[in-house]
Amino acid sequence: MDYKEVLKNAKQNLNGSCRVCQVCNGRVCAGEVPGMGGTGSGMAFTANYEALEKVKLNMRVIHDAKDPDTSIEIFGKKLRIPVMAAPVSGTTLNMGGKFSESQYISWVIKGCLDGGVYPIVGDTAVDAFLPTNLDELKKSGGTGIAIIKPWENKNIINKIKMAEEAGVFAVGVDIDAAGLITLALFGKPVGPKTVEEIKELVKSTKLPFILKGVMTVDDALLAVETGAAAVVVSNHGGRVLDQTPGVAEVLPEIAKAVKGKITVLADGGVRTGVDVLKMLALGADGVLIGRPFVTASFGGESEGVKTYIDKIAAELKSAMILTGCKDIKSINKDIIR
Amino acid sequence: MDYKEVLKNAKQNLNGSCRVCQVCNGRVCAGEVPGMGGTGSGMAFTANYEALEKVKLNMRVIHDAKDPDTSIEIFGKKLRIPVMAAPVSGTTLNMGGKFSESQYISWVIKGCLDGGVYPIVGDTAVDAFLPTNLDELKKSGGTGIAIIKPWENKNIINKIKMAEEAGVFAVGVDIDAAGLITLALFGKPVGPKTVEEIKELVKSTKLPFILKGVMTVDDALLAVETGAAAVVVSNHGGRVLDQTPGVAEVLPEIAKAVKGKITVLADGGVRTGVDVLKMLALGADGVLIGRPFVTASFGGESEGVKTYIDKIAAELKSAMILTGCKDIKSINKDIIR
Amino acid sequence: MDYKEVLKNAKQNLNGSCRVCQVCNGRVCAGEVPGMGGTGSGMAFTANYEALEKVKLNMRVIHDAKDPDTSIEIFGKKLRIPVMAAPVSGTTLNMGGKFSESQYISWVIKGCLDGGVYPIVGDTAVDAFLPTNLDELKKSGGTGIAIIKPWENKNIINKIKMAEEAGVFAVGVDIDAAGLITLALFGKPVGPKTVEEIKELVKSTKLPFILKGVMTVDDALLAVETGAAAVVVSNHGGRVLDQTPGVAEVLPEIAKAVKGKITVLADGGVRTGVDVLKMLALGADGVLIGRPFVTASFGGESEGVKTYIDKIAAELKSAMILTGCKDIKSINKDIIR
Amino acid sequence: MDYKEVLKNAKQNLNGSCRVCQVCNGRVCAGEVPGMGGTGSGMAFTANYEALEKVKLNMRVIHDAKDPDTSIEIFGKKLRIPVMAAPVSGTTLNMGGKFSESQYISWVIKGCLDGGVYPIVGDTAVDAFLPTNLDELKKSGGTGIAIIKPWENKNIINKIKMAEEAGVFAVGVDIDAAGLITLALFGKPVGPKTVEEIKELVKSTKLPFILKGVMTVDDALLAVETGAAAVVVSNHGGRVLDQTPGVAEVLPEIAKAVKGKITVLADGGVRTGVDVLKMLALGADGVLIGRPFVTASFGGESEGVKTYIDKIAAELKSAMILTGCKDIKSINKDIIR
Repeated sequence: MDYKEVLKNAKQNLNGSCRVCQVCNGRVCAGEVPGMGGTGSGMAFTANYEALEKVKLNMRVIHDAKDPDTSIEIFGKKLRIPVMAAPVSGTTLNMGGKFSESQYISWVIKGCLDGGVYPIVGDTAVDAFLPTNLDELKKSGGTGIAIIKPWENKNIINKIKMAEEAGVFAVGVDIDAAGLITLALFGKPVGPKTVEEIKELVKSTKLPFILKGVMTVDDALLAVETGAAAVVVSNHGGRVLDQTPGVAEVLPEIAKAVKGKITVLADGGVRTGVDVLKMLALGADGVLIGRPFVTASFGGESEGVKTYIDKIAAELKSAMILTGCKDIKSINKDIIR
Repeated sequence: MDYKEVLKNAKQNLNGSCRVCQVCNGRVCAGEVPGMGGTGSGMAFTANYEALEKVKLNMRVIHDAKDPDTSIEIFGKKLRIPVMAAPVSGTTLNMGGKFSESQYISWVIKGCLDGGVYPIVGDTAVDAFLPTNLDELKKSGGTGIAIIKPWENKNIINKIKMAEEAGVFAVGVDIDAAGLITLALFGKPVGPKTVEEIKELVKSTKLPFILKGVMTVDDALLAVETGAAAVVVSNHGGRVLDQTPGVAEVLPEIAKAVKGKITVLADGGVRTGVDVLKMLALGADGVLIGRPFVTASFGGESEGVKTYIDKIAAELKSAMILTGCKDIKSINKDIIR
Repeated sequence: MDYKEVLKNAKQNLNGSCRVCQVCNGRVCAGEVPGMGGTGSGMAFTANYEALEKVKLNMRVIHDAKDPDTSIEIFGKKLRIPVMAAPVSGTTLNMGGKFSESQYISWVIKGCLDGGVYPIVGDTAVDAFLPTNLDELKKSGGTGIAIIKPWENKNIINKIKMAEEAGVFAVGVDIDAAGLITLALFGKPVGPKTVEEIKELVKSTKLPFILKGVMTVDDALLAVETGAAAVVVSNHGGRVLDQTPGVAEVLPEIAKAVKGKITVLADGGVRTGVDVLKMLALGADGVLIGRPFVTASFGGESEGVKTYIDKIAAELKSAMILTGCKDIKSINKDIIR
Repeated sequence: MDYKEVLKNAKQNLNGSCRVCQVCNGRVCAGEVPGMGGTGSGMAFTANYEALEKVKLNMRVIHDAKDPDTSIEIFGKKLRIPVMAAPVSGTTLNMGGKFSESQYISWVIKGCLDGGVYPIVGDTAVDAFLPTNLDELKKSGGTGIAIIKPWENKNIINKIKMAEEAGVFAVGVDIDAAGLITLALFGKPVGPKTVEEIKELVKSTKLPFILKGVMTVDDALLAVETGAAAVVVSNHGGRVLDQTPGVAEVLPEIAKAVKGKITVLADGGVRTGVDVLKMLALGADGVLIGRPFVTASFGGESEGVKTYIDKIAAELKSAMILTGCKDIKSINKDIIR
């Protein structure tokens, strides 16, 4: 399956909810929430893309990195490339509704596992949602991660138990959903959490616990204090707070402050293998990719998802050759101009 | 009433005088004076928008600001959010003429009072104008502020008396109208004022006196010297002097110089609750909003105005949660990247 | 006569050679030489516009500059505003050919004199050209300046004599025409000049001698050494060397180096009274304006030219009020942000 | 033959593979590989153009450089201007296929020799390709350079022998093709090289050896260590690694580090004689030009190529006059602002 074909199909199947632009940078869909855009001016989404775009690479060709190893290990699991599918949900609300939630997520899950990486499934205000996602994960005999909304702790802890039973190898909370006042309309308030509250969540499970939605050094340091296993540097795809900086802009300072103490994942604007390389060079231990997995799933089902993973794997390898990196550990800020 | 509906109606009712662009940034209407644009190149208007756009926010989610208080008190009055409707006038000259001056301003006044904030009414070369505005203010049993053009002092003082009689709780002069040579055509010259001249105005009333149109630290320091109660950092919506910087660019240095000595209000390019938060973080005690109140009034009468206020109130609250600000006093430059 | 009307007529009369864009910045006409554009990429023209655009003004309203004096004296002549019409020629080659050279220049000359400023006439490879221009200058009983191409000195000195006989009050050479290899095709080579060669020209006349086309501090210091009365900081409207900086960018350093030792005139991208104010604040003693006088002459003959001068005079005065400058001498870098 | 005519024909003959834009900057063709674009986002191509665009020139007119000498000597050969045609190949794959590889390259070769400069021919995965190119070089009685892909050393050394037999005066490897994973599909892997491997290549021939594809100071210093005669600062026209900086951006630091120790050629975004001047001022000893030779060959055969060379020669001479450079040696960073 050709990736161009995947995109062409996706454009049709997404019913205008996403235009599948040549460059997925958030400009055309600015403000489309619901939809696939960034909130308000859309600039928190475009900032993710632009912050990566500003990073330029030192091409290096006199060296012996002739066949780089692109694999890593995270939470005891081996990944072919340091990439996971970010939790994205809402086929009816955001993606035009042609495919059901379970169709969409089952393709993401299978495609990821076939492609040698892992899926992360998400949670919404609809109670049935997380169980559906976890069921699909089970069906694929699959391993993956579950990210839960920042409900009251009791509610979260129940959902963590459900995820554990489904066999996930890590859990977490996308704490940046704290400002989604709309969720409160369903009578299930979300909100920010104190260090103490997060500690309670961390202690409630033996699985590695992930805090998704950290955008400052201060929050990253507090995250370390909570005992969490990982932070995801993320502005929620630019969908919760207008006018944040891009992830690639804040990543270096966050990585500098906490790397080694906590796993640092980066999520924002990654589209290609070259973008993956940049995020790693900026300090990430691994990368989450969101919207392109929607396009790949809607455009080619599980095969589309695998095609996309193969594409970025090839790009990453070529880029590692041309910057002289023989494995993921070798990638550092020296390759950035 | 839905805000999108308000904008749709406004586009029709403004008769092309304003295109009600998706982003109200002064580009399309550049040079349209009369009209809703900035003067000359239009860049003093676009600068207001762009200066705010450049300010990026630190998203913070690990804290306990779960239910922020958005209210403030200015001049002894409590406001639901730190926002007032800026004085904008000229329905025939600038807004396409479909609604009369008193219709337009009565909707702004009622909508503001219903929304928990206060309107500021303005003055023009037409003698009947200010009395009309003050009458509407009275009719709504209303409380508000009157801003007078920089005529000769005697003339201003007469108008201050009229405003006092109408029950306003503060008065002021938009001294940046000093360069409007067109006003001189009506035989009523406007001009800049010396410190001594402004002192005379301040002393002429017991109400708090506001100097609107300060764009430099020097002028702000002189304003403190006059005994005025407040300055409005404003370039008159970019309509008097082409090529000034944006308000959000000069605000921090002005706030640093005079905050605490005089109330600092900011007026330029504010469209959303996130913009309000930015202006406060940059040093403003409160914010004036201009053009969006025209659109809201023309698009939905007083209900449109209230709808707009509700919208920015919700945005402000969500943004305060996501930046960790529990009340207006807590907002400071730490939330700015 | 309304200036908008002038522009509308100009658009028609210029036959597409100039689109009379809303903003005359060199983008649409990039590369149109012959024509009205900048050479090559057009960026030396656009740089003039953009360098001015970057300069932002400090609005000041608390002062006593209520009725500023906009006049200056240059070379013993009084000008209503510190503006002269730059030498621009080639109605057939560059301006669509509807009007003859003598029509066009006679309107510029008369319009300038009616408007209280002075015209500068130019020279080309066609021998009859300068005499025609000088004749028109004489006819208007006119006073003005003649700028001659950088031919061999002997040829220049002859033309200086012709200009003296026509009654001009200053002469000069646009030495930046040195790279116009096309002129060599007419068998009349132009070229750069050494300090010694320029000294010979300066000594050949009792009139003030102007060197037009200085863009570096080094050349400006050499110009002082030649004994010339004035330099014009100019890149020839971006028509001789692609990729030079804009005039407003290099002006401050040149003014700093030579101001007081030689009159400093600035020529590049000035369109409005606000632009005139900026050039003066950046260090110019006076300003030359080029393309807008073509549009004014083609769009409204001498009346169009006067209309344009009246417009920028009003803009300059309003801008002086709003920046607190009571006369031209008071304008300095403090009004620039 | 008029250059505009050449471009017009080229647009037709290139069959949409290249739009022959007014400005050849890589924006429209972004991602078109195969085709004439840059890889991925296309930004490594646009960066070449934009890095040059940012360089501004000091216009200087008071001096005695009235008739500059534009010639240089490289590898013992005299060139009319310091320009060579870069190796570009793939008429079927990249250029629309209207003309054969040998037609296209024969026109480039003849046009270059007629224009007083030298062609560089290239190599591809197709075995017959290099011999064809070398045959055409021989036919024109021609002198030129051959650049070989970074195959295994044994393979390269065989090809160097073939080139020697064809009479070239220098050989080299475009080592930045190392990341072209597609070449591996033909069973002929390319890759980066160590210093030792390159030394073997250098020693295999008595001809000057050129390393094309250096973008960092580190690689340039290693190149000196290998004993190579020259480096070409190049990102392969932006076609191998997305998101590199532009050549003109990295050139100054590379030239500073190795100039004098090794010949420094620059290849990236050069379009005009002004661009040639900039690259020399930034530290290059000579310049390679790629895409414009394709357009010239497709648009006017050998005469088109010569027309293009004449054009940039005239532009270079005029620009040297206007910056005061009497010969190529005189060109240095002082002419850059």
